[in-house]
Amino acid sequence: MTRTIKTDQKLMIYLDDWRARIDKTLEAYLPDTVAMPTRLHEAMRYSLFAGGKRIRPILAIAAFEAVNRETGEKIETALPVVAAIELIHTYSLVHDDLPAMDDDDYRRGRPTSHKRFGEAAAILAGDALLTAAFAMLSDRRLTAAIPAERLLSVIHELGRAAGSLGMVGGQFVDIESEGAVGSQTVSEETLRYVHAHKTGAMIRAAVRVGALLGGAVPEALSSLTIYGERLGLAFQVVDDILDLEGTESETGKRVGKDAAQQKLTYPIVMGLEASKQSAHRLMTESLEALTVFGPEADPLRAIARFIVERKS
Amino acid sequence: MTRTIKTDQKLMIYLDDWRARIDKTLEAYLPDTVAMPTRLHEAMRYSLFAGGKRIRPILAIAAFEAVNRETGEKIETALPVVAAIELIHTYSLVHDDLPAMDDDDYRRGRPTSHKRFGEAAAILAGDALLTAAFAMLSDRRLTAAIPAERLLSVIHELGRAAGSLGMVGGQFVDIESEGAVGSQTVSEETLRYVHAHKTGAMIRAAVRVGALLGGAVPEALSSLTIYGERLGLAFQVVDDILDLEGTESETGKRVGKDAAQQKLTYPIVMGLEASKQSAHRLMTESLEALTVFGPEADPLRAIARFIVERKS
Repeated sequence: MTRTIKTDQKLMIYLDDWRARIDKTLEAYLPDTVAMPTRLHEAMRYSLFAGGKRIRPILAIAAFEAVNRETGEKIETALPVVAAIELIHTYSLVHDDLPAMDDDDYRRGRPTSHKRFGEAAAILAGDALLTAAFAMLSDRRLTAAIPAERLLSVIHELGRAAGSLGMVGGQFVDIESEGAVGSQTVSEETLRYVHAHKTGAMIRAAVRVGALLGGAVPEALSSLTIYGERLGLAFQVVDDILDLEGTESETGKRVGKDAAQQKLTYPIVMGLEASKQSAHRLMTESLEALTVFGPEADPLRAIARFIVERKS
Repeated sequence: MTRTIKTDQKLMIYLDDWRARIDKTLEAYLPDTVAMPTRLHEAMRYSLFAGGKRIRPILAIAAFEAVNRETGEKIETALPVVAAIELIHTYSLVHDDLPAMDDDDYRRGRPTSHKRFGEAAAILAGDALLTAAFAMLSDRRLTAAIPAERLLSVIHELGRAAGSLGMVGGQFVDIESEGAVGSQTVSEETLRYVHAHKTGAMIRAAVRVGALLGGAVPEALSSLTIYGERLGLAFQVVDDILDLEGTESETGKRVGKDAAQQKLTYPIVMGLEASKQSAHRLMTESLEALTVFGPEADPLRAIARFIVERKS
């Protein structure tokens, strides 16, 4: 542990500051709860403003900053674009919690969308959040300062990462494999697929979106892609460990649920110690990918450590 | 009835020809069923290639043609963009059929997605189809010939029309109002909202997308917007009438289901005769919006008549 309390505090301020700016951007964009259909907008906002850490948009901001000194692009122009990533992330949580999927009653200490608004409303709120992401990304009133071709490459990056070859594909295989945990060889292969796609794809994409928006040169984009890929895998391994070890008050959801459902998780398939080692190895690899950068990548480094060492 | 058999045949050839080209474009874009997760791609293709008429993409093509003589844009460049509209339409059908929504077992004479693949797979297939639409729209390998700013305006148009202020909003209010048919005043107002949003918004957007891609001048865009708006309303009124009058073999789904579910439909709220008059009035209004165009808008005229006079 080479970190000091000061470094921790600096990261907390960084995270809080950007979280507030991202929330403000989302708040201004999303129709308010007097817009018809009021209850649909209420449901969308209920899940979007549920105290999320906004890790994905902040990763994009930090990646933007890492290439920023070279390119001199203004970070404010990127804000509506990175905020839209959170709309995609929130939709995925709302749909994952549905009775036909993971069937979760609580998230972040509150009833899930379908428990609060009913199943049809939760499906539609998720659909509307996903759609709103792409409407926001292509809204030139918000993104006028970004070159059109660059914005199209960002939209394509997110469309690919969120789709059947990315996040949705990972969730599909995860559901498919439920209760089928047993055959060790098949499980490890499937486990890697699920983690790389379900969580990894969007974290990798968030980092790449920041780099693309900042006008990264190909070498910088490659390095940041590796950083995002390893970090994305680490993120899910830590999530699995927390599900097994964490307390309910820390994670805000029922603990041990994955084990009870025979879900494909790292601790179940590889054991707890091997999982912890794996998380740290992935973090180390993600940090190594940043060696080409100087202090401009310090936020990315601090976030990687934060993700792997978090307790909830 | 001023139409001749020759006109009918010409329209059928036009619809069949474009349907085949749209299907080919979608076929080439969507991952095939050997791409992992294979069963997810199978589910996506099952619903996408279920014999749909591709009316929305063809409306976009016809709107493109209506402004094409002025602008000289090549129609082939528009094909991947208009095909993506069908991905959005298909996702909406898959989610509408879900048990928590309209709970339909059959569509186009085949089991619905959730009956065939299970509920989780149907939710995810819908999510992936919606996401694929935006990935396709922003894929520059397919759309290189379209100016980037124009493509962004198309993506934004579809994102708005498909979201909480458009199609999803209409579906939400439709579900909310189920079983609540009774108070005549409230019902008529709600009915108009549902129809304008659930079906109308995407038909209007399809026409506008074609016009935008064709580089329509503001006046032409306004006229085509009115055409699309009235036609979208007419489309749903006819759908409601067919649900009440059509035979199962013609519509491919259980007839009279709307009435049994106390769904908000034109015939239930306004009566059958008034509904038929309304459909024809809307068709007339849509045709009147085209008076500024010459024969280049003949396909749009023929499609409007086809939609209102169809039997399934």
